[in-house]
Amino acid sequence: MAFAIDGRRLWESLEALGRIGRYRDDEAEVWGVCRLALTAADGEGRRHVVEQMKAAGLAVTIDRIGNVFGRREGREPLAPVMVGSHVDSVPTAGRFDGCLGVLGGLEIVRSLADDQRVTRRPIVVAFFTDEEGCRFGTDMLGSAVATGRIPLDRAYGLKDRDGLTVRDELSRIGFLGEADVALAPPHAYVECHIEQGPTLRAAGKDIGVVSGVQAISWHELTLTGRSAHAGTTPMELRADAGMAAARLNLYLRAMILSGRYGALRATMGAIVPRPGLVNIVPGKVIATIDLRNPDDGAMRRAEQDLIGFYDRVAQDEHVKITWRQTARTDSVAFSPKLQERIAAAAEARGLSCSPIVSGAGHDAQEMARLCPAGMVFVPGENDGISHNPREYSTPEQCARGVSVLADVLLSLAEEEG
Amino acid sequence: MAFAIDGRRLWESLEALGRIGRYRDDEAEVWGVCRLALTAADGEGRRHVVEQMKAAGLAVTIDRIGNVFGRREGREPLAPVMVGSHVDSVPTAGRFDGCLGVLGGLEIVRSLADDQRVTRRPIVVAFFTDEEGCRFGTDMLGSAVATGRIPLDRAYGLKDRDGLTVRDELSRIGFLGEADVALAPPHAYVECHIEQGPTLRAAGKDIGVVSGVQAISWHELTLTGRSAHAGTTPMELRADAGMAAARLNLYLRAMILSGRYGALRATMGAIVPRPGLVNIVPGKVIATIDLRNPDDGAMRRAEQDLIGFYDRVAQDEHVKITWRQTARTDSVAFSPKLQERIAAAAEARGLSCSPIVSGAGHDAQEMARLCPAGMVFVPGENDGISHNPREYSTPEQCARGVSVLADVLLSLAEEEG
Repeated sequence: MAFAIDGRRLWESLEALGRIGRYRDDEAEVWGVCRLALTAADGEGRRHVVEQMKAAGLAVTIDRIGNVFGRREGREPLAPVMVGSHVDSVPTAGRFDGCLGVLGGLEIVRSLADDQRVTRRPIVVAFFTDEEGCRFGTDMLGSAVATGRIPLDRAYGLKDRDGLTVRDELSRIGFLGEADVALAPPHAYVECHIEQGPTLRAAGKDIGVVSGVQAISWHELTLTGRSAHAGTTPMELRADAGMAAARLNLYLRAMILSGRYGALRATMGAIVPRPGLVNIVPGKVIATIDLRNPDDGAMRRAEQDLIGFYDRVAQDEHVKITWRQTARTDSVAFSPKLQERIAAAAEARGLSCSPIVSGAGHDAQEMARLCPAGMVFVPGENDGISHNPREYSTPEQCARGVSVLADVLLSLAEEEG
Repeated sequence: MAFAIDGRRLWESLEALGRIGRYRDDEAEVWGVCRLALTAADGEGRRHVVEQMKAAGLAVTIDRIGNVFGRREGREPLAPVMVGSHVDSVPTAGRFDGCLGVLGGLEIVRSLADDQRVTRRPIVVAFFTDEEGCRFGTDMLGSAVATGRIPLDRAYGLKDRDGLTVRDELSRIGFLGEADVALAPPHAYVECHIEQGPTLRAAGKDIGVVSGVQAISWHELTLTGRSAHAGTTPMELRADAGMAAARLNLYLRAMILSGRYGALRATMGAIVPRPGLVNIVPGKVIATIDLRNPDDGAMRRAEQDLIGFYDRVAQDEHVKITWRQTARTDSVAFSPKLQERIAAAAEARGLSCSPIVSGAGHDAQEMARLCPAGMVFVPGENDGISHNPREYSTPEQCARGVSVLADVLLSLAEEEG
């Protein structure tokens, strides 16, 4: 008989965590979640999950970047199989992003305990610090530090808009742990996550077998013109940083429509004009650009052309444009063995599945540096909308994803060296 | 001998008031001024000027919208001649906008006192509440209430971004006066102001004889799309409120370049995307548009076409666009008699002058409803930049403007009924 998780318990745990940091979203007319990394709400969410881990019999350790590991011992002293994700959120989140992977892992060890079943290898349920990157500007922060991509000191020194540092905020919420951040390579890492896009739902698939993660490039731009009186300054004498930002945004669209950059996605998410008042030409704008591309070559072309356009707009609009790279990852390919095993598990349960490239960044792509890594995607309703309170996957969709995750996890946990 | 003001005392008074609410502006690398209406800094600036008025022997009254009037009695109980402007500022201001008119009026009565000279009519030096409109969204607020365009209750109820009302903030800074807001018509109103544009300086003119003020139209827009994950949401499924705002900004430029709207000026000064984060498609944007036009017909055409474009962008971008008119004034023509008198005074002093349309709104345009009104413009350095800490007129330019203002004021103050 196939291993069975308790779908209802999983759902209830998603709802319980979703009540922490919740807010009423007037736009979406539903409850949303705001547990921005290392805020008090994130601290509360973290403590809640740690309590659940301990109640499930896991031994909890916290490392120096605040990553949390709940370990269940196996029959043999082999490298563990790790399952996890994150519990921090964007400011306008739903209940599923990240949480499904963490609580899914927790549900699996609870079900193992119910069955009084001990695996050969230890199982570690992990959640990583600041996967979203919204507050300190660098996403997958905890998993990147644990796997050596970002040095701990650099991560500690990152500041939010108020000048608060990662280190101080970790300490403030009580998650500045003592364990070494250099993670010993697990046997494998698996993560269940919502797709955060419309593809699986539109294709009627139950499970996405994630082949990899697209490349990500974030720019933070500072456009400096000259603030001036909106009524008296002739149009030809202006250096309007807001107009320059608008042209960059439209250029992103033109890049997409050109078809020259493959499956490029591009977004100007933040635009902060100063002084930002009705009757003053904006003298300064801080803006961000987010580029994604599954093809590393097409991504590099897009970046080069965009940077070239910065120069052109700077010249045309008489503004200075400076920018810094706040995130940059190449595309990542997940373990073919794990992809095969995920597809096989889905098929054995009679679930439909298809390969899919992840549109979002995930902790699994960081873990792929240390060990074979794989991801199971679950379809989402409402066109798979995410980073929005309307984010929603059904109890059945969640349970199917975690069941497939469990099958793969347990097969890995019985493997030899 | 011509009446002489003390140019050095005028300059020192500008510098003294400019130290209140000052801040270091990193962009301009100079000291700027921030005395946003009805903030503590505005209160401090107001108290400073009230003290100076009292020291100059003026009898100060404050009306229920916080307008301040310093009266110097004349030889006869006739309607006074009024001189004034405002002392509130935009958040990124220099030392001259508004202050030159108020402190210029104060300098004239000080010089009259030095000469022990009493005019036939009383002279009133006035400063009006919230001329800039940056905080509560409606400019020329105090003078509009005093002259009956805006009812007092409506003005009281205006709120800033934090929900604080004009009435409560007037009370908090101690300027909720008791005098009736309905101003008894003065004999005439004159105001000296910096041009806030490059025209006079470029033409080498000492004095601008203001023929009138261009029409002003402000829209506050709310663009509502759908916030979504920047990495996973296909471009064609987005409802990006930031992209819609960028298109509106570019449309403003296209309107200017079309040449179809005369001397139109158009500015998108504020853009506030929500949630405003690097990896989230903006679901909502609040933006403002400021239109100016010396021609009322061309202004109406521009407004109609712009509103038509709102609908088109809403449809194209799958966003909802709502807007409200936060300010709207037709163009205003100043008294021909006062224009002639200003030009004659300039010529008598050997100063060059030219007629000019004001690009900015001024309290004088409100006062023009009650009595003959006129304005003297003073050229500005740095292309006449204003609403910027680099705003600068020389001591000589200021003294010339106030000298011409004095000549006109004194001639009016000796007139019969």
